[in-house]
Amino acid sequence: MPIKEGDYVLIVGDGVRSVIKVARGSRISTIRGVINADDIINQEYGTLIKTNLGYDLAVLRPLITDILLERADRVTQVIYPKDAAQIIINAGIGPGSRVAEAGVGSGFMTAMLAYYVRPNGRVYGYDKREDAISIARKNLEMLGLLDWVELKLRDVISDGFLERDLDAVILDMGDPWNAIPRATEALRFDGVLVVYVPTVNQVIKVLRAMSDYGYVDVRMFDVMVREWKTEPDEVRPQTWVNAHTGYILIGRRTLRPIAQPTK
Amino acid sequence: MPIKEGDYVLIVGDGVRSVIKVARGSRISTIRGVINADDIINQEYGTLIKTNLGYDLAVLRPLITDILLERADRVTQVIYPKDAAQIIINAGIGPGSRVAEAGVGSGFMTAMLAYYVRPNGRVYGYDKREDAISIARKNLEMLGLLDWVELKLRDVISDGFLERDLDAVILDMGDPWNAIPRATEALRFDGVLVVYVPTVNQVIKVLRAMSDYGYVDVRMFDVMVREWKTEPDEVRPQTWVNAHTGYILIGRRTLRPIAQPTK
Amino acid sequence: MPIKEGDYVLIVGDGVRSVIKVARGSRISTIRGVINADDIINQEYGTLIKTNLGYDLAVLRPLITDILLERADRVTQVIYPKDAAQIIINAGIGPGSRVAEAGVGSGFMTAMLAYYVRPNGRVYGYDKREDAISIARKNLEMLGLLDWVELKLRDVISDGFLERDLDAVILDMGDPWNAIPRATEALRFDGVLVVYVPTVNQVIKVLRAMSDYGYVDVRMFDVMVREWKTEPDEVRPQTWVNAHTGYILIGRRTLRPIAQPTK
Amino acid sequence: MPIKEGDYVLIVGDGVRSVIKVARGSRISTIRGVINADDIINQEYGTLIKTNLGYDLAVLRPLITDILLERADRVTQVIYPKDAAQIIINAGIGPGSRVAEAGVGSGFMTAMLAYYVRPNGRVYGYDKREDAISIARKNLEMLGLLDWVELKLRDVISDGFLERDLDAVILDMGDPWNAIPRATEALRFDGVLVVYVPTVNQVIKVLRAMSDYGYVDVRMFDVMVREWKTEPDEVRPQTWVNAHTGYILIGRRTLRPIAQPTK
Repeated sequence: MPIKEGDYVLIVGDGVRSVIKVARGSRISTIRGVINADDIINQEYGTLIKTNLGYDLAVLRPLITDILLERADRVTQVIYPKDAAQIIINAGIGPGSRVAEAGVGSGFMTAMLAYYVRPNGRVYGYDKREDAISIARKNLEMLGLLDWVELKLRDVISDGFLERDLDAVILDMGDPWNAIPRATEALRFDGVLVVYVPTVNQVIKVLRAMSDYGYVDVRMFDVMVREWKTEPDEVRPQTWVNAHTGYILIGRRTLRPIAQPTK
Repeated sequence: MPIKEGDYVLIVGDGVRSVIKVARGSRISTIRGVINADDIINQEYGTLIKTNLGYDLAVLRPLITDILLERADRVTQVIYPKDAAQIIINAGIGPGSRVAEAGVGSGFMTAMLAYYVRPNGRVYGYDKREDAISIARKNLEMLGLLDWVELKLRDVISDGFLERDLDAVILDMGDPWNAIPRATEALRFDGVLVVYVPTVNQVIKVLRAMSDYGYVDVRMFDVMVREWKTEPDEVRPQTWVNAHTGYILIGRRTLRPIAQPTK
Repeated sequence: MPIKEGDYVLIVGDGVRSVIKVARGSRISTIRGVINADDIINQEYGTLIKTNLGYDLAVLRPLITDILLERADRVTQVIYPKDAAQIIINAGIGPGSRVAEAGVGSGFMTAMLAYYVRPNGRVYGYDKREDAISIARKNLEMLGLLDWVELKLRDVISDGFLERDLDAVILDMGDPWNAIPRATEALRFDGVLVVYVPTVNQVIKVLRAMSDYGYVDVRMFDVMVREWKTEPDEVRPQTWVNAHTGYILIGRRTLRPIAQPTK
Repeated sequence: MPIKEGDYVLIVGDGVRSVIKVARGSRISTIRGVINADDIINQEYGTLIKTNLGYDLAVLRPLITDILLERADRVTQVIYPKDAAQIIINAGIGPGSRVAEAGVGSGFMTAMLAYYVRPNGRVYGYDKREDAISIARKNLEMLGLLDWVELKLRDVISDGFLERDLDAVILDMGDPWNAIPRATEALRFDGVLVVYVPTVNQVIKVLRAMSDYGYVDVRMFDVMVREWKTEPDEVRPQTWVNAHTGYILIGRRTLRPIAQPTK
């Protein structure tokens, strides 16, 4: 497939890793030298191009995670792909799922959800911060994923979700225990609740609320992805690793009456 | 949604966790007592049912991971959901992707791939063992995912893949370095190669082959998912954790000539 | 050095790993066959002896950790060598240190402490359970370490420690926050307090108490030791690992008045 | 105990953590303001002193690990306390042990060994680099541990160790497999060999050599110490952790003939 003007491309090689929007006549600067955008337009994706300093860099279609990590704007702490991956698979979210998320923050998780519920599912993204909604919209547009998302400026704790019978609700906010009653009424019976929190103080409150509201099959886990150096003669883990982002809590709603907590 | 005869259901609660096929007139035995299948047919999913010993168990629609872990047959070591999740997201595999996998083994990874490439993508599953193909077919049928998979009894090292221009190829076999030339010719330019191996001896050989065949943006990582106990008053990680399944190596094909290795 | 009657020896090889007391005329049974004790008496340590089934087993002087893990009796959950190692080094405990421990439990940590404060230091071991004191004494005797330990049947929360000006106090009990006032008065100014607890609920209470009682340089960590398979052609981590034993909290006492908490 | 001129002291609090040598008349600068050395001389250790900016900092006797991490010079990659702790305890090294180490590098491991073999053991430290010997000597002097160490400028691979019948030998060098024959002849029968290497390529060669030279009870592990934030209301692991330093391999010598490898 040929590289076209306006494409986002991933440039990689010799320590270079960045996502660039191709603009005719422009120069692409990297730490390994410069490439002329005109020299890659109409080339095949996968091509290797020499910089003015003599380095071979590859030009690739970026994956969704490449764009999120290298190019998307951030307004808040984001849910990283490693955690998004475990949330999506462990909540059974896939093509066709109807999912709500509060709050959307910078829209990273929203984007991953949109990517995986395509083409016939839907993501309802809530946030009470206007700047979050705005950044998330921008990121989703860049990724071409806005068609599968409805963004809503709304406080779910006070005002609730507008949907019912959802397959999953994901809470990524400071005090998610306060949103659990509202999430519960938005979920289908046996729907999946996912909560993402960074501290163990929050974990304790979430577990109490999940128990109070009758959730079953409750699991909690944290995910560590250990990156390695890939030089064949010196294979070893990277020295520094992101060892903590957040805890993931997952449970299933039941038919227990939700008007009042079970205890 | 009501529970129907013939459904696979997940029964959970008080240490019970199993996936059962509902058959009219049958008795469902658990370590917490017995349920009559007739008592749950036509009930809503999410319902709580009391066993003859007085325990409340919930009846839920199983997620794909529930069926794989609790119900699917195994003929070989499987790729676990924690690793499947990272492979799928990091390879950008999603709705519409065309992906080959060798070998399919028990079909766990195949099933996860099929679930996520729906409704318009396709999975090509290779194995040289007849029993693997047969078990994988059975598991995919139980999951209702066979429509998106073509299973092929074929040795990819000697005979190659039948597809071209694939988005991703996943190698899960003892000597994947020997299959890398064949995987490379099946991939689109800039397509994603994923290799999954359990030992560091294998890792070294794979990294050499990926380097020889011109792969770029090569990453390697292992995934640890640490499960926690979820009793709100005694929150702590589980004592024992599955600390190693396999290493995941990912790289992108380039336009480098593939007739001979680059060194 | 020759093996003598009455020695504890470590027998290892081909999956065998056990600590045995050598008794003249006895037969040592292993999963790889039988050895006659008389055949190893007066042999050099490090010798290889053939079992009646033809396996070569090595006879070694057991290290202190070998005896604790393979031979010592247990009355409670123990502090494992991996955690004991980090506690000892991070608290600066070494030859000559004067250290109190509450509670001693099975005496594993007590034994490690005694081993490292030799020959001129001292360990004061408290427990309110008579069976713990009794098992700990037996284990310390077997290890030849009782000379450096004073065991005391006493509740430190109600009755306090009998020593003052200690280099370190180690709390390994269910409600250590209640013992922190007493530990503080037993420590020298700038002495080291170590607390070991399994749950995050306990962690939160301990951190509050350490803050209230003026501790500085407070650190908290957990230790994961990942064991690997050592077959040179199939090097990989063990599948299952003990991923959680307890959290270690360490702080230094200051001259802050301890009559009442600082807030 | 009073603070004296010439003491190394640890200053901690509000993000400050440094080891300072107390010199009469000097000013101690920290990111939280300045302290006059004269104001702390003759104060008790554990005292809190106010900086000119109004922060309370504690003045403590530094532990050996504080001096190593905050003050010692480095000429090479060092063995960190977390690994030193596991090596010392798992090799059974303690008061009275006779241990050789090659190479000493900056002397961090040497210092830990010296600290723990006191008062009646001995450490023999080898390195073929003159600058390493010189820095190690300086660090050991600062720590007051030189009395228990003999440093030797000597290449153990070509020239061997000068001692025999050692309790343990520790190899921390680029090609330790080449030193294993020499380490074996320096160890007592049933002595402990420890090898520390950062890459899996090295691990494979070490495991082959340990097998060739008849070592038994061979273990390999890596150590992860996960530090946490200790604010009681926001308890969580630190985001970034040092996830890899090196692999620790431990085995016991046997009476197998060592003139030629066993295979």
